[in-house]
Amino acid sequence: MTQPIDVLFTNATIVTMNKTRDVIADGAIAVRNDSIVAVGPADALAAQFSPARTIDCAGGVISPGLVNAHTHVPMTLLRGLSDDLRLDVWLYGFIMPVEREFVTPEFCYTGTQLAAAEMIRGGITSFCDMYYFEDQIAEAAAKAGLRAICGETILKFPAPDAGSYDDSLSYCRSFIEKWKGHPLIVPAVAPHAPYTATPEMLKASIELALEYDVPLHIHVAETTFEQEGSKAEYGMTVVPWLEQYGLFDAKVIAAHGVHLEESEMHTLKEAGAGVAHCPSSNLKISSGVAPVQKMLSLGLHVGIGTDGTASNNDLDMIEETRLAAFLQKGVFGDPTNLPAQDAWALATIEGARAIHLDHLTGSLEPGKRADIIVIDMRGLHQTPRFAYMAETVYSQLVYAAKSTDVRHVMVNGQLLMEDRALLTLNEDELHAKAVAMAKEIDIFLSSREGDLMSKLLAVGSGVTPVETFEIQAKTQVSSADEMITAMENHPDIRIVRSSVRNQYDSYFVFDREGMGRIRHREDEVLNDDGSVKEVLYRIGLIGPAAERVFDKSIILTRSRYSLPADKSRRFYREYFQPAKEIQVAKHRRRFHITFKNTSLVVNIDTLNSTGNVYVEVKSRTWSAKDAEEKAALLGEFFAALEISAPEKRVHSEYVDLV
Amino acid sequence: MTQPIDVLFTNATIVTMNKTRDVIADGAIAVRNDSIVAVGPADALAAQFSPARTIDCAGGVISPGLVNAHTHVPMTLLRGLSDDLRLDVWLYGFIMPVEREFVTPEFCYTGTQLAAAEMIRGGITSFCDMYYFEDQIAEAAAKAGLRAICGETILKFPAPDAGSYDDSLSYCRSFIEKWKGHPLIVPAVAPHAPYTATPEMLKASIELALEYDVPLHIHVAETTFEQEGSKAEYGMTVVPWLEQYGLFDAKVIAAHGVHLEESEMHTLKEAGAGVAHCPSSNLKISSGVAPVQKMLSLGLHVGIGTDGTASNNDLDMIEETRLAAFLQKGVFGDPTNLPAQDAWALATIEGARAIHLDHLTGSLEPGKRADIIVIDMRGLHQTPRFAYMAETVYSQLVYAAKSTDVRHVMVNGQLLMEDRALLTLNEDELHAKAVAMAKEIDIFLSSREGDLMSKLLAVGSGVTPVETFEIQAKTQVSSADEMITAMENHPDIRIVRSSVRNQYDSYFVFDREGMGRIRHREDEVLNDDGSVKEVLYRIGLIGPAAERVFDKSIILTRSRYSLPADKSRRFYREYFQPAKEIQVAKHRRRFHITFKNTSLVVNIDTLNSTGNVYVEVKSRTWSAKDAEEKAALLGEFFAALEISAPEKRVHSEYVDLV
Repeated sequence: MTQPIDVLFTNATIVTMNKTRDVIADGAIAVRNDSIVAVGPADALAAQFSPARTIDCAGGVISPGLVNAHTHVPMTLLRGLSDDLRLDVWLYGFIMPVEREFVTPEFCYTGTQLAAAEMIRGGITSFCDMYYFEDQIAEAAAKAGLRAICGETILKFPAPDAGSYDDSLSYCRSFIEKWKGHPLIVPAVAPHAPYTATPEMLKASIELALEYDVPLHIHVAETTFEQEGSKAEYGMTVVPWLEQYGLFDAKVIAAHGVHLEESEMHTLKEAGAGVAHCPSSNLKISSGVAPVQKMLSLGLHVGIGTDGTASNNDLDMIEETRLAAFLQKGVFGDPTNLPAQDAWALATIEGARAIHLDHLTGSLEPGKRADIIVIDMRGLHQTPRFAYMAETVYSQLVYAAKSTDVRHVMVNGQLLMEDRALLTLNEDELHAKAVAMAKEIDIFLSSREGDLMSKLLAVGSGVTPVETFEIQAKTQVSSADEMITAMENHPDIRIVRSSVRNQYDSYFVFDREGMGRIRHREDEVLNDDGSVKEVLYRIGLIGPAAERVFDKSIILTRSRYSLPADKSRRFYREYFQPAKEIQVAKHRRRFHITFKNTSLVVNIDTLNSTGNVYVEVKSRTWSAKDAEEKAALLGEFFAALEISAPEKRVHSEYVDLV
Repeated sequence: MTQPIDVLFTNATIVTMNKTRDVIADGAIAVRNDSIVAVGPADALAAQFSPARTIDCAGGVISPGLVNAHTHVPMTLLRGLSDDLRLDVWLYGFIMPVEREFVTPEFCYTGTQLAAAEMIRGGITSFCDMYYFEDQIAEAAAKAGLRAICGETILKFPAPDAGSYDDSLSYCRSFIEKWKGHPLIVPAVAPHAPYTATPEMLKASIELALEYDVPLHIHVAETTFEQEGSKAEYGMTVVPWLEQYGLFDAKVIAAHGVHLEESEMHTLKEAGAGVAHCPSSNLKISSGVAPVQKMLSLGLHVGIGTDGTASNNDLDMIEETRLAAFLQKGVFGDPTNLPAQDAWALATIEGARAIHLDHLTGSLEPGKRADIIVIDMRGLHQTPRFAYMAETVYSQLVYAAKSTDVRHVMVNGQLLMEDRALLTLNEDELHAKAVAMAKEIDIFLSSREGDLMSKLLAVGSGVTPVETFEIQAKTQVSSADEMITAMENHPDIRIVRSSVRNQYDSYFVFDREGMGRIRHREDEVLNDDGSVKEVLYRIGLIGPAAERVFDKSIILTRSRYSLPADKSRRFYREYFQPAKEIQVAKHRRRFHITFKNTSLVVNIDTLNSTGNVYVEVKSRTWSAKDAEEKAALLGEFFAALEISAPEKRVHSEYVDLV
């Protein structure tokens, strides 16, 4: 008597990706409910089962669904927004400003739907995400029928879905509680990267991951800049830095790993952590090429990811897999590196292992969830096929197949695509939504302050975001010398170092609301005898507004950018064509101090035009909580020196005082 | 009054790739006969022309057809034949044996049709080829309606379509005379590469190219091995070596250029030569990454090629273009390298310039031939698109478009594909033909002598082809010492160096006809006092037959392979499982001599089993003509020493004498 099943895929070559990598030339797969019940020769399965539905896969290959081990799915709505730029320009000049403005729950839901449609069309059945509003991402993925690890981003900066990392952590906790145990969705904690984390933030993230036994998704060693920065700041590379806080006690998914040292690979291996290799993204934004063959030889679990479309610009895992194989050969000088069979394994079973889902997906074996794709191998670009060795099927899949050859897709027993028609998503509707959203972003980018930003970026190099978030206060005082004496004599103040400068600033002011200003600064650094030591020229964009006001006068300012000005002031004037130009000249005595063990910068400025003296106190900050504490500290600083009540403080920039 | 035209493409974004890189947002193109008559705004052209046929390209981009600057189209029939192998193994173990057996005029015709179908489907309108039987390639390309440069290969080895380079040159001359002036086909001379050329062969090729003013297509600096080999052999890298024979007087198309030195780039630039960059192939067979950004900064003309599918494994120029852009960024450490617009230029106008066809194709301008493609930009993987800058269209084309998005293709005014249906080729017929041909190759590979070859390659490393072609003769003599004295005293003979060895050979012999034999050699090199200096172990494949017999006894032998034997004789015996094993032990005195200014090797061998003494004379050869001359020389050598008439010579290998 035959057993009833729901679906029988039959009449195709099956690449099982099981332990012995069996390839079945004329095979079939039986599916009941959400799982695979049998894999074997077509004849045998036909005799054994009575399927409710038979899918004839003639001319095709049946493979485990592809695993996209690292992505940011809602960014699909930012595809092709800005390319061929330096990382800092791309990130700070385009992606972050647009995200700040547009990333809402709706954006994340629609972006996930768009990405899901593209991923299903390309044979991806599982993805591992890291973004904001992961609750909406999980909703959209579950509705589309995809398997996903959804990692809520934790950052030391404010994020589109959180004013501070404390908010992100509490969002993440509720998110985990809501989704844990879902048949398709695995919630996760995603501290963004070592360089965007504070130790406290990291420790809280790890605790959360361990408390709920959910994966921890993080960018690791993506750039040399990151590794060098870590060495300079902490005296060690990123993996040991992360390890000291216990990060590898969690089920880690480390994205990129381009610049991992061998000792770091050992740490990841010992921890059973996965690495998500993202070849397109690493090339496109010039991070380099990850030593995947090396990682594999050490026994690491490696998967392949598309990263977000903003740095790719698509979600094509077959292309990504081919590129992974090509790069290991071409860049590391051995054409036998990452052969096709191993590359296909990274895209399936090894990818599943890397994201800690190999108990559910990644291979075609009885008992696993039915995450199955059928790829048509009859296209002319796939012709001919050789059969003298079983391995040639992997060659065809990796080196010749296209994502558009994927014909049917099933996840967890549910068909998501049949004969290239999506069954859980409406393409036309999605297309219209995405086009409408892109139009809004187009308008924003055409009119934003970013006009200045782009122009600034277009003429300089080495743009760095300065004072990314800064808490600051300013007040007028009667005498610079009195102020200095008071600081020198105060027991809670320690002066670390100081300098004296004449600063000649030109502000380019524009008519349009909210455009910000361009500041050109000639910074004459003086010796003790008043002679000029050196002159620095910088040009920068000054944001238009305070982000937040504390205590009536202490303000949190937002990102500013500045870069060395290697052209004349005349050039910049003609280039930016400001409505007005305002000159501010001042004598500045700058002090790096600590006050109650916190680093502050104190500027004592005498304006040339009025002779008025101002004290400006500043400190960098990363989280809302930290900003509040520092706002209070700035109040205490003024009180300690008995200068100016809050109501007497100056709220304006110098450019608005002259 | 409106002017009559044949076709109006309208209602799309036009990327003209003209000098000012104009992008027309809502544009149209008018085609009359084989040429473009106007490019401009859709409204304006609608008012100006009355088309016999209007093609509405809504949601699309109209681009110049793509230029595939380097390929070997018939090799499409070898797609996926053997991958992930070392270059020597791939070439000598698989590609060359299969080519020797299967490359016929019919193979080349069908292979070109198959490639043409794939190329048209992917938006390629021109290709630059190098292979054998180029006459059939030209026929098939012209019939398919593609524009092509067809370069007939000239090699120092015998080729599938020629017994020697003299034959290739005369084939090439007739081929040029037949096709010169054809509206689609440009015949060309293709000396394969510096390392497969002799100076005479090269000079004759250059003369031919200059005589008919046709392009010269050659592989240049593809591998470090090639550059190092050239330095070792000639004391200079390949470009100066080629230059001394006047190569750059011709219209050169230099494929690969991965390892060009800067001075070599200058030579190419001065000569107006083009470079065909083949990123997939260079990665896949581990040649490296060509410094394209550097070449462009020096003003070189660079195009992009797919190379043959045997090393790619497809003919997808959009994928190739994306990879070119990615690699320049990721490998050379600057994300602003090769931005999308420049990459698209390499695939179109710059590619046309590199293959010396920019007067006809590569851009959409009045007067140029109508080589036009329409790419659909409405797929979800292309969604959304941003428009705040005109350049975003290039980003979409390079980073997100797929070859399957190409909708219409026109070459020389003729539509070759409409709505993805091929108009000049029958896909089903082609598919069937290719499948049938692959089946034959499958059978060959399963049963060839190459069983041994593959097995040999599977257990060794550093396989080198030795005695690729060798002319040799052997005769029995009465005394070794008499022979040596005769050589020492002869005025036309100079002994360069000599050595003495005991050689213990084991031949593994197999039952199957034509399988060849495996030889394991223990080579005891002796000091003057007869003590053992060193012992060398090698294992090799001895081809089964002579290629050609001269003068009744002097034979031309074919390729043999040998590699260091790092395993025991027992291992090899068990591994190869021969039907029989034959031992040959001999004492060998080896002399490297010159005879009438030609290098020869003379072995004076005493067989241990019989005490018989034999003289074996050998010389490497490359062309049939050279082989004939050397065969005569070997006759003269025996005559000069007054040993053995031709009829007394020994035709057998030692293994057949014992």
